[in-house]
Amino acid sequence: MIDSIDEVVSKTVRDGMTISFHHHFREGDFVFNMVMRSIIDHGVKDLTLAPSSLTNVMNDIVVEAIEKGVVTNISSSGMRGTLGDAVSHGALKNPVIFRSHGNRARAIEAGDIKIDVAFLGVPNADEMGNANGMDGDAAFGSLGYALMDAQYADTLVLVTDTIKPYPNTPASITQTQVDYVVRVDAVGDPDKIGSGATRFTKDPKELQIAQMVHDVIVNSPYFKPGFSFQTGTGGAALAVTRFLRQSMIEKNVKASFALGGITKPTVDLLEEGLIDRVMDVQDFDKGAASSMKGNRNQQEIDASWYADPANKGAVVDNLDVVILSALEIDTKFNVNVMSGSDGIIRGAIGGHQDAATAKLTIISAPLVRGRIATVVPDVTTVITPGDSIDVLVTEVGIAINPKRQDLINVLSKVPGLPIYTIEELQQKAATIVGTPKPLEFTDRVVALVEYRDGSLIDVIKEIKD
Amino acid sequence: MIDSIDEVVSKTVRDGMTISFHHHFREGDFVFNMVMRSIIDHGVKDLTLAPSSLTNVMNDIVVEAIEKGVVTNISSSGMRGTLGDAVSHGALKNPVIFRSHGNRARAIEAGDIKIDVAFLGVPNADEMGNANGMDGDAAFGSLGYALMDAQYADTLVLVTDTIKPYPNTPASITQTQVDYVVRVDAVGDPDKIGSGATRFTKDPKELQIAQMVHDVIVNSPYFKPGFSFQTGTGGAALAVTRFLRQSMIEKNVKASFALGGITKPTVDLLEEGLIDRVMDVQDFDKGAASSMKGNRNQQEIDASWYADPANKGAVVDNLDVVILSALEIDTKFNVNVMSGSDGIIRGAIGGHQDAATAKLTIISAPLVRGRIATVVPDVTTVITPGDSIDVLVTEVGIAINPKRQDLINVLSKVPGLPIYTIEELQQKAATIVGTPKPLEFTDRVVALVEYRDGSLIDVIKEIKD
Repeated sequence: MIDSIDEVVSKTVRDGMTISFHHHFREGDFVFNMVMRSIIDHGVKDLTLAPSSLTNVMNDIVVEAIEKGVVTNISSSGMRGTLGDAVSHGALKNPVIFRSHGNRARAIEAGDIKIDVAFLGVPNADEMGNANGMDGDAAFGSLGYALMDAQYADTLVLVTDTIKPYPNTPASITQTQVDYVVRVDAVGDPDKIGSGATRFTKDPKELQIAQMVHDVIVNSPYFKPGFSFQTGTGGAALAVTRFLRQSMIEKNVKASFALGGITKPTVDLLEEGLIDRVMDVQDFDKGAASSMKGNRNQQEIDASWYADPANKGAVVDNLDVVILSALEIDTKFNVNVMSGSDGIIRGAIGGHQDAATAKLTIISAPLVRGRIATVVPDVTTVITPGDSIDVLVTEVGIAINPKRQDLINVLSKVPGLPIYTIEELQQKAATIVGTPKPLEFTDRVVALVEYRDGSLIDVIKEIKD
Repeated sequence: MIDSIDEVVSKTVRDGMTISFHHHFREGDFVFNMVMRSIIDHGVKDLTLAPSSLTNVMNDIVVEAIEKGVVTNISSSGMRGTLGDAVSHGALKNPVIFRSHGNRARAIEAGDIKIDVAFLGVPNADEMGNANGMDGDAAFGSLGYALMDAQYADTLVLVTDTIKPYPNTPASITQTQVDYVVRVDAVGDPDKIGSGATRFTKDPKELQIAQMVHDVIVNSPYFKPGFSFQTGTGGAALAVTRFLRQSMIEKNVKASFALGGITKPTVDLLEEGLIDRVMDVQDFDKGAASSMKGNRNQQEIDASWYADPANKGAVVDNLDVVILSALEIDTKFNVNVMSGSDGIIRGAIGGHQDAATAKLTIISAPLVRGRIATVVPDVTTVITPGDSIDVLVTEVGIAINPKRQDLINVLSKVPGLPIYTIEELQQKAATIVGTPKPLEFTDRVVALVEYRDGSLIDVIKEIKD
């Protein structure tokens, strides 16, 4: 037990080290800023920052740490805002490495990421470090991504605002892994932790997409008793879950499991008996988080169990259906969820590459966003290869990857489901928004994008203003 | 999924490897014999056998494996019967290494034990290897010791008789760790798994010891709200738990946790609200095993969390009171739980050395057993050093380690609690049974006994007939 962040930082962090954090507090995170402030003030240099991801509340202080030479390397699932802008303009000394959640687990296990000190915020812990994500003011549910850091970090610092009596169980992180427990006033803002949309969308475009995603799923060969799915977050995803529920009841199709980042509508299906198990690597809202505490069929899983391509078996290997998003998708079905139409980094891989290995991978995206096409001739950055994408669903209709002739056969028989080639959708988008001026980049590489197996799939270059 | 033990053995086991098993099925184990039979029949040579322990049902086949040169090294918590006899007579090529449960966890983590192939019997698993000890005909509860093998073995083979739908949760062993799942007809005999005594003893000597153990505990400075304890199994231990329960109710003293191998009377205290948590590395009876399934306050812990002296923190570090047994205890309070009065190996360290680090370590043992003294001038084999023992309780009275003057002060004020020096108790024993002829050994070392930190604490030599 230590009472001050400053004290634990001076005991643990040295020049050149790799430090890590998790992002389960999302936009309600207080821990990252507290620790990074102390590290900057200590004048430590040349750190590698290797969090599970970086949320918007972390942007400004990372930019400061980069400017002061405190951070010279970053490995993350993604970044946005002022940080994405700074990195895209060449602020960081070395290229960022973007890794999916499954790839981060692989990299940690393989030693590609060697964490010297992990600072993990938890909503509760006992004095010895037994902790979980389920109790306390800033509870967020599953500690999935952080469990990798807990298992592999040389030095593990827990930061909490709630000390529980020993022994604090159920313990997702155990005392066997913990070096220091630091007590602070508050680790997070509960109102900003569960920031995912929880209300049913009324946007007609989103509803139209959700209806077509539903139609694709229930008419596919995968929609049968014991099927499994991952939906993700956002208004359309929640609507898909609602439509799916109706069909599951009508056709008496129960799912073996739902996977991934979990939302309230998904745990409702668990409660209803329409799903046997929820495999939970993170919770997007309070409903999902509080359900994990009470429902033993909602299993907390770490990032390795979720999606590591190099372990002996991950849940994504058994996944039937996944619905994923896209900033851009091109005529080769390659997907970009990282760089904006302006070439600036503003996204995250998350589990995109990992879950895209499902038997039926559906990209759900509007044809255009404002004056910007989603379906394009070539994506700015390849994050998930077109080879793993089966169907694109937009509000005007769907496109099926030509390699999936089986899906083309079954889905073309579905009444009211407009099927186009991906080139046709791309041309429709171009007709609406025109052809943008090509982006201009310098030759300097600012980020490396790895595929989930650790191979290089693309690079991001410095934007030319 | 593989359907035959022979097939998985031929795929995985090679000359010179280290193979491991767990002993959670105790005397009901079918898996060990199935696998060893196949290994012997395959003609593999020069194996190191490194199970968590060896129970009596394993004896004969290990003797056969030794005679045939299949097994030339053993690391175990203990051994008994024909195997202990054979090893004591020099049958094994190299000395056995005896390690406590905590030391085995340490040795596995440190690489002193490098498991090539672990064969772990489980009462249920799905096809990918997600498994727990709680469901199925041969359920035994906590998988505590086996979790070390699951985490560290190069190749992990699960053997089960019950295939569950995927994903099988809660999963104590996860698919990320598992290479092969082998289905067999039956993994164990349910009636012989929970072999611990579950009935209250009527033996007046045991009751007398239990009463005095209770008196020592409740009059010690450790008996206060939030205290913790480990009792173990056997008639006297169960009686202690029952006496303790009465005092806990009367004095309104609730325990923070009970630790160790768990019995039904202990989980009853949990149900009653007299204990907050049960930290469960193994279950000695069906009542304890089935309770783990339903009670979230009964936490499954692995051997590292239980007692590893080299990790960042183990539960034994926070243990207040433990009651342990002894085959012999000498006037330096050294305890032997391994070799009999005939010099033959017939015991197991178990968690003895580990739990003896508690603040109050009580040895509960009869002064004599038949014509054999328990309290002796010098133990045949030092398993747990006298330095960690605080009080010996026998049916005639107690002896307190002289270094615990504080305990001598408080316990001498307890009415009806006869206190002797350990030398006096030794002399009483000698008066009853006389002085035995010294044992004769050859110079050949047949077993090395490690202390929990991996250092050598004693050796066992070949018995001279």
